[in-house]
Amino acid sequence: MPSTPIHPMPPFTKQVDLASGIIHDPHRVQTRRLSDLRGLFHAADAEAALASDDPLVYRVYDAHDAPNAAGQLLFSTTVIEPGRIGDEYFMTKGHYHAKEDRAELYYGLQGEGCLLMQTRDGDVNVQWMRSGSAAYVPPYWGHRTVNTGTEPFVFLAVFPADAGYDYGSIRERGFASRIVAGEDGPRIVPNPSYRGG
Amino acid sequence: MPSTPIHPMPPFTKQVDLASGIIHDPHRVQTRRLSDLRGLFHAADAEAALASDDPLVYRVYDAHDAPNAAGQLLFSTTVIEPGRIGDEYFMTKGHYHAKEDRAELYYGLQGEGCLLMQTRDGDVNVQWMRSGSAAYVPPYWGHRTVNTGTEPFVFLAVFPADAGYDYGSIRERGFASRIVAGEDGPRIVPNPSYRGG
Repeated sequence: MPSTPIHPMPPFTKQVDLASGIIHDPHRVQTRRLSDLRGLFHAADAEAALASDDPLVYRVYDAHDAPNAAGQLLFSTTVIEPGRIGDEYFMTKGHYHAKEDRAELYYGLQGEGCLLMQTRDGDVNVQWMRSGSAAYVPPYWGHRTVNTGTEPFVFLAVFPADAGYDYGSIRERGFASRIVAGEDGPRIVPNPSYRGG
Repeated sequence: MPSTPIHPMPPFTKQVDLASGIIHDPHRVQTRRLSDLRGLFHAADAEAALASDDPLVYRVYDAHDAPNAAGQLLFSTTVIEPGRIGDEYFMTKGHYHAKEDRAELYYGLQGEGCLLMQTRDGDVNVQWMRSGSAAYVPPYWGHRTVNTGTEPFVFLAVFPADAGYDYGSIRERGFASRIVAGEDGPRIVPNPSYRGG
């Protein structure tokens, strides 16, 4: 058993605004407009959208900055705006954890959408989320979130502070599947530009 | 970087009922009536209450059972009923983590209450919670939750799967402080029967 530090980290509370999902007094806010997400959506559709507008796609509110240590946790809220580029719904960049055996928990606060997940071996998994949905990203699953609704999709994310981010794998190879608007709602389709394996 | 397992753990979603806080299809439900909590409240007050009734104090809904490994997370909801034994509000047993450097995140869903925390060196900290409050239990803080309101106090808890529980320290020595009903609402007072240090 480790001995108690002389000055343990003090407890704190961050209040989440229930209507907007915004964390009051966040450590950091990351804002992602379409121009920050080159390569994420189909290029021609993204260029067409950018020619008329540079829409806000999502914001991440990081609550605090914990020591990069096993046992510490980080948490954030994400607000994904409703919208599409071509037939593809607004979504986050997505990442694997740098420490791939680190899990993550998502808890839906507002709106609806999904967690799109994949392993490096080509398994794909989609978990549909709404308010009150607690979706578990087990170790080794790359993950991205998608707003398939008409309102902002807002969720709380909790993850080990030492998980880290590997965005490069997704940026270089993409996701094996895309979530697109069909006539009867969202559909999961293969991504033809996925360079997987 | 660890290699991806051939059969990674599958993702899943558990739905939290927003009105009641109950997790559908939980791994486990722990029900704590007053008779399960001997020694928690002042003995004479508890005996008087037990003579007339054995009230439900709280329930814990454990969502799933993850491997006991660094990087995995567990989550649960807790529903603490409103009520008091003498002047002391209904509360959970409270514990330190067996791995004391493991943190925990609480997210308030319904009602109001507080997280009562202490270190083994006698520091005490109280975080007041309501719907949307994300309260962080840093490593090394023993923690208990208290319903100071008139409705059920419901919250989501997320913690490392390898944190473990040390209930014995609290059972043997108690908490340094108590949360009691005063004329103007809840008060934090010393616990005369605390055998601390």
